[in-house]
Amino acid sequence: MELYLERGFGQTTVAQIAERAGVTERTFFRYFTDKREMLFDGSERLQQLMVDAVAGSPADATPLDSIGTALDAVGSVFVDLTRSRTRQVIIDSDESLQERELIKRDRLATAITGALRDRGVEEPVASLAAQTGIGVFHVAFASWIAPGNTLGYAEIARNLLAELRIVTNGS
Amino acid sequence: MELYLERGFGQTTVAQIAERAGVTERTFFRYFTDKREMLFDGSERLQQLMVDAVAGSPADATPLDSIGTALDAVGSVFVDLTRSRTRQVIIDSDESLQERELIKRDRLATAITGALRDRGVEEPVASLAAQTGIGVFHVAFASWIAPGNTLGYAEIARNLLAELRIVTNGS
Repeated sequence: MELYLERGFGQTTVAQIAERAGVTERTFFRYFTDKREMLFDGSERLQQLMVDAVAGSPADATPLDSIGTALDAVGSVFVDLTRSRTRQVIIDSDESLQERELIKRDRLATAITGALRDRGVEEPVASLAAQTGIGVFHVAFASWIAPGNTLGYAEIARNLLAELRIVTNGS
Repeated sequence: MELYLERGFGQTTVAQIAERAGVTERTFFRYFTDKREMLFDGSERLQQLMVDAVAGSPADATPLDSIGTALDAVGSVFVDLTRSRTRQVIIDSDESLQERELIKRDRLATAITGALRDRGVEEPVASLAAQTGIGVFHVAFASWIAPGNTLGYAEIARNLLAELRIVTNGS
């Protein structure tokens, strides 16, 4: 498994991966010397950041307001677009990395559900808001790393939350 | 891997799993003789069902209306509560099964995004509606299999969609 991963995105295809990500091999290795671990070493910090933001949101904030606060917090760490783009190309190149990413995202949803419950949000609203929030988190990330994008992560996430309000009220 | 899975939920803990699911071992084996494959053999059919429902929803349906139609369709196959509860206890008992479930859910989201795009829904609304819909799909499933629930899947999903409209308009 370890070997497979290293062969998968380490030895065999670094040049291709770097090319697809639109960076040089040197840039690739500047970010990902540690390879696999480097790819996910920020996820616990990210989770804590979002949980703290939900916990610290104003007492009268709605569940979706709290999610908005958490997404703003994400915007403070999702700032290095080149790194994030490169990272995503690597993940997309390897199925086991994609699985790991899905697990991290699922844990994030569970943690945010818990943070909302701790604020007194009842079920099923806590789960519903957290799942919706993670959906926005995910779509915002894809928009942020999309070619040609110049907006910041938090701004994109805010736009999507506004869009979500329209989508859910179109009927 | 195969062996690990079979040891994990097959040989070693069938009695415990059956007990936790509140069924007899006989019931367990009636549903899951084929074990691992049985657990996911319906997922492609489920995906096709949801995609067809989105594609077949009225021309003037909003993206979320189309999602509602897809969730109604799910209600026509999520009918055997004992089977679904037992299946979930097995999945929850094994990390690699949980991973597989996350992958299936992610594929479902991608397929529904595609079905919405085919109807002319533009990005990021297609992805946003699909991710939100999968969130509802997931929370509805958890509510449906929860102890003591007597409502049908489609009814729960409809209630959650209504709840979502409230949640997204609370501010």
